[in-house]
Amino acid sequence: MDFGHSPRAQDYIARVQAFMRDHIFPAEAAYHAQMTGSPDWRQWRQPAIMEDLKAKARAAGLWNLFLKDPHHGAGLNVVEYAALAELMGHNTMAAEVFNCNAPDTGNMEVLHMYGTHAQQQQWMLPLLEGKIRSAFCMTEPEVASSDATNMAATAVPEGDEVVINGRKWFSSGIGHPNCKVLIFMGLTDPTAERHKRHSMILVPLDTPGVKIQRMLPAFGVYDEPFGHGEVTFDNVRVPKENIIAGLGRGFEIAQGRLGPGRIHHCMRCIGGAERALQLMTARGDQRVAFGKPLNQLGGNVDVIANARMAIEQARLLTLKAAWMMDTVGVKAAMSEISMIKVVAPNMAQAVIDAGIQMHGALGVTLDTPLSTLAAYVRTVRLADGPDEVHRKVVAKFELARQRLARGEA
Amino acid sequence: MDFGHSPRAQDYIARVQAFMRDHIFPAEAAYHAQMTGSPDWRQWRQPAIMEDLKAKARAAGLWNLFLKDPHHGAGLNVVEYAALAELMGHNTMAAEVFNCNAPDTGNMEVLHMYGTHAQQQQWMLPLLEGKIRSAFCMTEPEVASSDATNMAATAVPEGDEVVINGRKWFSSGIGHPNCKVLIFMGLTDPTAERHKRHSMILVPLDTPGVKIQRMLPAFGVYDEPFGHGEVTFDNVRVPKENIIAGLGRGFEIAQGRLGPGRIHHCMRCIGGAERALQLMTARGDQRVAFGKPLNQLGGNVDVIANARMAIEQARLLTLKAAWMMDTVGVKAAMSEISMIKVVAPNMAQAVIDAGIQMHGALGVTLDTPLSTLAAYVRTVRLADGPDEVHRKVVAKFELARQRLARGEA
Amino acid sequence: MDFGHSPRAQDYIARVQAFMRDHIFPAEAAYHAQMTGSPDWRQWRQPAIMEDLKAKARAAGLWNLFLKDPHHGAGLNVVEYAALAELMGHNTMAAEVFNCNAPDTGNMEVLHMYGTHAQQQQWMLPLLEGKIRSAFCMTEPEVASSDATNMAATAVPEGDEVVINGRKWFSSGIGHPNCKVLIFMGLTDPTAERHKRHSMILVPLDTPGVKIQRMLPAFGVYDEPFGHGEVTFDNVRVPKENIIAGLGRGFEIAQGRLGPGRIHHCMRCIGGAERALQLMTARGDQRVAFGKPLNQLGGNVDVIANARMAIEQARLLTLKAAWMMDTVGVKAAMSEISMIKVVAPNMAQAVIDAGIQMHGALGVTLDTPLSTLAAYVRTVRLADGPDEVHRKVVAKFELARQRLARGEA
Amino acid sequence: MDFGHSPRAQDYIARVQAFMRDHIFPAEAAYHAQMTGSPDWRQWRQPAIMEDLKAKARAAGLWNLFLKDPHHGAGLNVVEYAALAELMGHNTMAAEVFNCNAPDTGNMEVLHMYGTHAQQQQWMLPLLEGKIRSAFCMTEPEVASSDATNMAATAVPEGDEVVINGRKWFSSGIGHPNCKVLIFMGLTDPTAERHKRHSMILVPLDTPGVKIQRMLPAFGVYDEPFGHGEVTFDNVRVPKENIIAGLGRGFEIAQGRLGPGRIHHCMRCIGGAERALQLMTARGDQRVAFGKPLNQLGGNVDVIANARMAIEQARLLTLKAAWMMDTVGVKAAMSEISMIKVVAPNMAQAVIDAGIQMHGALGVTLDTPLSTLAAYVRTVRLADGPDEVHRKVVAKFELARQRLARGEA
Repeated sequence: MDFGHSPRAQDYIARVQAFMRDHIFPAEAAYHAQMTGSPDWRQWRQPAIMEDLKAKARAAGLWNLFLKDPHHGAGLNVVEYAALAELMGHNTMAAEVFNCNAPDTGNMEVLHMYGTHAQQQQWMLPLLEGKIRSAFCMTEPEVASSDATNMAATAVPEGDEVVINGRKWFSSGIGHPNCKVLIFMGLTDPTAERHKRHSMILVPLDTPGVKIQRMLPAFGVYDEPFGHGEVTFDNVRVPKENIIAGLGRGFEIAQGRLGPGRIHHCMRCIGGAERALQLMTARGDQRVAFGKPLNQLGGNVDVIANARMAIEQARLLTLKAAWMMDTVGVKAAMSEISMIKVVAPNMAQAVIDAGIQMHGALGVTLDTPLSTLAAYVRTVRLADGPDEVHRKVVAKFELARQRLARGEA
Repeated sequence: MDFGHSPRAQDYIARVQAFMRDHIFPAEAAYHAQMTGSPDWRQWRQPAIMEDLKAKARAAGLWNLFLKDPHHGAGLNVVEYAALAELMGHNTMAAEVFNCNAPDTGNMEVLHMYGTHAQQQQWMLPLLEGKIRSAFCMTEPEVASSDATNMAATAVPEGDEVVINGRKWFSSGIGHPNCKVLIFMGLTDPTAERHKRHSMILVPLDTPGVKIQRMLPAFGVYDEPFGHGEVTFDNVRVPKENIIAGLGRGFEIAQGRLGPGRIHHCMRCIGGAERALQLMTARGDQRVAFGKPLNQLGGNVDVIANARMAIEQARLLTLKAAWMMDTVGVKAAMSEISMIKVVAPNMAQAVIDAGIQMHGALGVTLDTPLSTLAAYVRTVRLADGPDEVHRKVVAKFELARQRLARGEA
Repeated sequence: MDFGHSPRAQDYIARVQAFMRDHIFPAEAAYHAQMTGSPDWRQWRQPAIMEDLKAKARAAGLWNLFLKDPHHGAGLNVVEYAALAELMGHNTMAAEVFNCNAPDTGNMEVLHMYGTHAQQQQWMLPLLEGKIRSAFCMTEPEVASSDATNMAATAVPEGDEVVINGRKWFSSGIGHPNCKVLIFMGLTDPTAERHKRHSMILVPLDTPGVKIQRMLPAFGVYDEPFGHGEVTFDNVRVPKENIIAGLGRGFEIAQGRLGPGRIHHCMRCIGGAERALQLMTARGDQRVAFGKPLNQLGGNVDVIANARMAIEQARLLTLKAAWMMDTVGVKAAMSEISMIKVVAPNMAQAVIDAGIQMHGALGVTLDTPLSTLAAYVRTVRLADGPDEVHRKVVAKFELARQRLARGEA
Repeated sequence: MDFGHSPRAQDYIARVQAFMRDHIFPAEAAYHAQMTGSPDWRQWRQPAIMEDLKAKARAAGLWNLFLKDPHHGAGLNVVEYAALAELMGHNTMAAEVFNCNAPDTGNMEVLHMYGTHAQQQQWMLPLLEGKIRSAFCMTEPEVASSDATNMAATAVPEGDEVVINGRKWFSSGIGHPNCKVLIFMGLTDPTAERHKRHSMILVPLDTPGVKIQRMLPAFGVYDEPFGHGEVTFDNVRVPKENIIAGLGRGFEIAQGRLGPGRIHHCMRCIGGAERALQLMTARGDQRVAFGKPLNQLGGNVDVIANARMAIEQARLLTLKAAWMMDTVGVKAAMSEISMIKVVAPNMAQAVIDAGIQMHGALGVTLDTPLSTLAAYVRTVRLADGPDEVHRKVVAKFELARQRLARGEA
């Protein structure tokens, strides 16, 4: 057993930490001040400082860290990158600086693993360069996405084209001024086997028939300039060359995509909790009430200790899930991935809430990153499968494991 | 013991319920659609439908229900009005319809109890008519308001005037287009006894030197068109006639103001939780996943039962606190008031969070009232004293009571 | 609304409190010292002091307080008696002193409501006199009692007799040296309608074929001198006159029996929690660590406040359920009765656990009543229906209520 | 990072698992049936089967596994042994089988590290052989042990002897028929520096003046045949040769003793939780209510998943603390050790409680190991420092770490 990071990971951790301390945290206020705060995404602009930061990060060799491929990315394994994803979770702007933001990471991975050479040239390379952004269109308003096979929007081959129809929402990233392409997942063959009915298709955002109806707020936060869109597809036609991997392979691709994505989400949640604890303890040392710093009052000692204990546990479990992905593969790590998908955002929700409480009224404003982080981690409890579905997965594996141990089939 | 409402309360409950069913719930969507969604309060307008609803409510005799005085209000006691405050908590627009919204209710009560005839004529009557709105400026960004005697902004007599200086924030209601006056609480005499240092002063919003710096979001929600402002006072001068009750009486007035205000807040929290349970069970009956309505899946039965049990308990405790205010007075009910101030918003936070979870992604949007209610009840855990201070009060009374029972002084 | 007790209840409360203060608490140590501490119930003796206390209580008019019938009991309604049941919950000996202990109370009620004159003469009167004790045999080891219709032990008529066979456990009270009779509930007609299959039969303890196999500990506590027995019935024959109310009426009787019984259990749980809070605060005032009384250290203020808030809420809900039983009947109060059956023992478990924690090692010993109370309230979460079943009942009623409100059948 | 056990640990894990499956679990019922169940420890006998099992374990090379020294023990490091301690936590008899039971392990470690050659010959070797048992006398009834410097019983040098006086309790192991020696920790020099006032002394149990007053139950469980004694020392005289390490070095020794001891306790708690989950899932598969196995009813899926997630997290944190002890030493692991001391028993208490609930009435009896395990893990929340003290330690380290990160001293 070795609970220490590899020398390579330690090196990256130190460099990302230094970069964030020197460049990102100082830019937080300016970045947020350049937001419009408006629900109208057509007015959104990427804050100017972001491209500066991206250039600096790239120059520092801190770019595409999520990608295992050493040619296009940093060549880190899942457990190594996990530590960096945590650091990027300290605010909601850092991931983009390192070109490691969702959903682009997942989309790049999909194109890297399943894309044709042409698809990679046209879309993956500009994404890896950070020149364009992309969206992912899977969730639908009309069906329970907790059971993803419910997806009803269609992607039907017709001659040399694929015809796309339906309504998606929480299409993340689609409001970004640089968003040029989306990956659409839709129903191709309702008569096929349950997990072979859906396909993934690349759709340029300017294809006729694609219409962003609005951006959806999450707890009042629009996640500007990325946004989560409600999008309609009305007889949208793209060439068959835009199919990824082949018709009916949507779920196969999604499974590969979701594994690392969940690790990233969870580690960012943990980073958010770490940031909350950092801010909370700083505040509690400085703010005085009833003649004492808050940290010395009443149960705040317990609040701090409980936060630390919860963070440590969630982090270890997430790192273990990452390590299993590296060593025995996604499939063998399915129960652990479901575990962290419940544990990490719930833990972060509680810790960030405690951080807000320690800040008093300040905590609910946008003057600290806390309320934005709170919105982020709360939505993670719903995205990529709600808590309830993941608990069900964990219980299913547990019962099977126990039956096996009892000698029952 | 009698856990039933008085016939008078039952009559009002039925009428408010009918009015909400017939007029307010159908207007929710239109009301929210007329919001700008912008942080810039200067663009805010009161949705047109509000004045219609107010006129209807007034015509129906459902107006100023909070005011015990049967001449100006409905003549209901605290426990009777509590039931109505709960109903108004089902969304964030109902209270204004019945002219029962904070902070106007508290301001009207203060003017009713402590105002001079001239103050009442000038400000209380238009407020009771619903023609103007008002704000309350107490909390300050620079000091821990959990210990309210920290307040540092000044209200100093100078000749025939009072001179006001300092910075306040979370001045609720100040963004409303109809807001005309604010009640300022500030330090008059730092050498006086701890609770006799502060005064309350009426300040017309257009007095030179009063400047709204910005509106403060709570979890991304601006509470449009009321808002919570950050306000600076720069040598603001008002005539001495604007002092309420007398210099140094700020805390005395505040105590009287806060008691009923806390009941109202708590009952609205309970109403918010009730609404969440209503929406959650409706959603859970309709939405299907894995072949079953959500209400029949996994632990949702426990979620629903736990919500019901928590609501019932919090409501009973809040009504008991209200009943004590009616029968033995605010002072004797101080521990109970602190109890509900912890219990009600925490309960509501948990129940509304569960309601959001049952709605999936829809729950975090503004398409249901859930995320707005979530922001509201979460801020109640900080407003009028954070949980921590109220728990301290409860423990203090408990220890005293136990010592008395043990025969120790 | 009136949250105050009736003058009659207040009078009884004062008298029971005084009696406990003057006679019962001083006798606690002696009573427990006279226990054998042995699992072998044949060695159990009722501590001598009990009969003295019973005589005193009876002389003081504090006797059979649970019985509504003013002729045989005190004539108190459910909500009035509830307050007294709470006081008796302060330890595990008080209920017997006032002849108000389970399962005798339930058995007396059954005989009072359903017994023939002969049954009342033979068994109810000696029970009301406190001269004999009784047991109740319902739960079975082999079937899930959460679904009571599972009960499989048989009570079959044969000529002038009823023949009883099977195995029961957690037959409470059966180890008491004075126990003379038990009420057996068993299957009479497996072909009848689900809730008309079982009968209740009076069985003298010395009937041939009745064999106590052992006493069952609950968390190591045997509840001496009452005990919870595992009992076998091997061709036990009693005359048909011992049938209560009629064959097949077991569930009908049980329902009437369980309603008040659950109120009693819950109020005793609340009393146990109240006692724990009393002991915890006393200990916390006296015990010093790190230079301060425990009550002033860290989060203990929160522990105390949380305990008080939880107790108040659980009590109000239990009293409301009692009030509903008095005013609208058991049937209309079914959801509320299920609510308290979850809320009260869970609350008490948490509060008593906190009380133990505040006592350090002393808390886990038998030197305080805490660990015995902990065992008691924990078993209440299983007795008379486990939490899970009651939550299911609450959710069922809630969903029905919400559907009705939505205008759905 | 490597979350896998070393080959050596894996080998031991497999062997201990096999031994427990083949020899210990089958003997559980017989072992418990041979208990007297009496509070009178003078009647206690070690069940005959224990010596058989010990001989078998020793023959299988599964003996003194806790001891790092490869000469006397297995030569495992802390993290390797931790996995075995977990397995031994599956019931309360296994640790003794492998000669790895508290407090003997700690006492052997103390003698191994600090004992003179004579002390080792006389006491350590027989302990390592499993021929005698020992006790540890530290906690006192009259002072708060959470602040261990409070200890008031005295160990005063007088000529060639040390004179011992005072009262100890929760002296674990002292009721064992084979217990021959105890380690006493007492006050030697009240004027010395706070952590240099106390000494540790070896006291043969038959020394005149040593008197066991009684055994203390923990939640009704006496932990027969070990027991937790209340012991008085009345002018007990032992030769100076019995001082361990030197006068005034009690705390120094205790610190070294407590580190590994806490790992062992925590891993046994985790083992207890694992056993509970095993029993709970087996029960839930077999027991049927309302037509379905319990595991498929309501929220039981969540109960099982929550248990699994909590166990995994607690285990990882405990193993990390163990790994830190191995790699950077006890001192650098102090915060982590305090974390697990809170996390592990609290987690286990919750999981075992859920296990009991799933068993219904059976769960509270002694027919499963659950209620004994519940008593064990609950006491761990008090032993070796209560939760409150450990949370305080964690918060203290956290605040220091955050200040350092902020560049504050």
